[in-house]
Amino acid sequence: MSDSSPGVADLLGVLAYAELTAFLRLAEDAACHAPTLADRAALGELAAAEYAHFRLLRERLASLGVDPEEAMEPFVGPLDGWHGQTAPADWLEALVKAYVGTGIAFDFYREAAAHLDDETRRLVEEVLADEGRSQFAVERVGAAIKEDPRQAGRLALWARRMVGEALSQAQQVAAARPELAALLVSGEDIARMFTRLTEAHNRRMDALGLTPGP
Amino acid sequence: MSDSSPGVADLLGVLAYAELTAFLRLAEDAACHAPTLADRAALGELAAAEYAHFRLLRERLASLGVDPEEAMEPFVGPLDGWHGQTAPADWLEALVKAYVGTGIAFDFYREAAAHLDDETRRLVEEVLADEGRSQFAVERVGAAIKEDPRQAGRLALWARRMVGEALSQAQQVAAARPELAALLVSGEDIARMFTRLTEAHNRRMDALGLTPGP
Repeated sequence: MSDSSPGVADLLGVLAYAELTAFLRLAEDAACHAPTLADRAALGELAAAEYAHFRLLRERLASLGVDPEEAMEPFVGPLDGWHGQTAPADWLEALVKAYVGTGIAFDFYREAAAHLDDETRRLVEEVLADEGRSQFAVERVGAAIKEDPRQAGRLALWARRMVGEALSQAQQVAAARPELAALLVSGEDIARMFTRLTEAHNRRMDALGLTPGP
Repeated sequence: MSDSSPGVADLLGVLAYAELTAFLRLAEDAACHAPTLADRAALGELAAAEYAHFRLLRERLASLGVDPEEAMEPFVGPLDGWHGQTAPADWLEALVKAYVGTGIAFDFYREAAAHLDDETRRLVEEVLADEGRSQFAVERVGAAIKEDPRQAGRLALWARRMVGEALSQAQQVAAARPELAALLVSGEDIARMFTRLTEAHNRRMDALGLTPGP
């Protein structure tokens, strides 16, 4: 598939806006909810990494001759909608969002990138690589649940709500951008892809100490 | 003056927290107030640069054997207080804050750093260097005032209020941290320092097209 494949600008555009807005929302959560300076700096670190990824994607769009803002524009509504529906009420919700919500969104983008040209795919894999940055979220949530096991139930519900909202927004995006949706499903067993996404999600829930709901 | 000078940890601590919190607040302003994607990305770029500076300062504190969180802790109250009193109500207020408010705060830190050992002073100058990043704020505010000259009055008042709040918080910090205050005034004509700070502030106001008030 060549660089001029119609879905490429869409994928880089949605990913660029996802990184830009993740950066801003994580920073906001760090400012509003972090209980200690160390926590604030740790979530800030995650936020700043997203910004660096946004820059790489914007440069790639520009190098393909695509206006980065035009490429991002169609996805502002759905992604802002998702963040609006999943604004964390406290620090633990913010951590679960940073780890589970970002995790499942990035899995989707990774699946879509699997069918692209090598250079684009390498870039997408680079910006989606976590490199252990979100490990602190796993540790903090694990410690909080160990201290107060009653937290697990509400956080598991919270994670499920985030996934539900993500699927709902993804459906809207797929309907509006058929070429992007085609990237996700091209020559692929859809059921197997959903199995992979679900397994990855369950691994993250396990890592947090949140048993997947029935 | 040696690294173990008592004001050094205070200066690096206040500056580290100033950068961390500027990063988070600028990101929040970008998320809440930026009217276009390009504006959001531009203020985001400024925010991400502050985070990189925070990391340098935190590393320097650690290399001096100082716990970064302990060094920042005394300044959380005053700096959060300042940001609380100067939360921008719209995009133009956010830009004036990013340029004028950050500008005067950084001038203060630069004055304090002038009396430190070479290595610390170079680091402080590095993290305070603007490198033209805030130029977009000057352009945006200038264009807005050209389009609607009535904006100038309220933005000039807004800038004056930010400076007033900064002086009020600085007095509290100086009273609580005499060694830090001593850095600012050591062997120096205070009147001349205030003249320099005022002149730099007036240059920024001129750059924005905001005539200093009477």
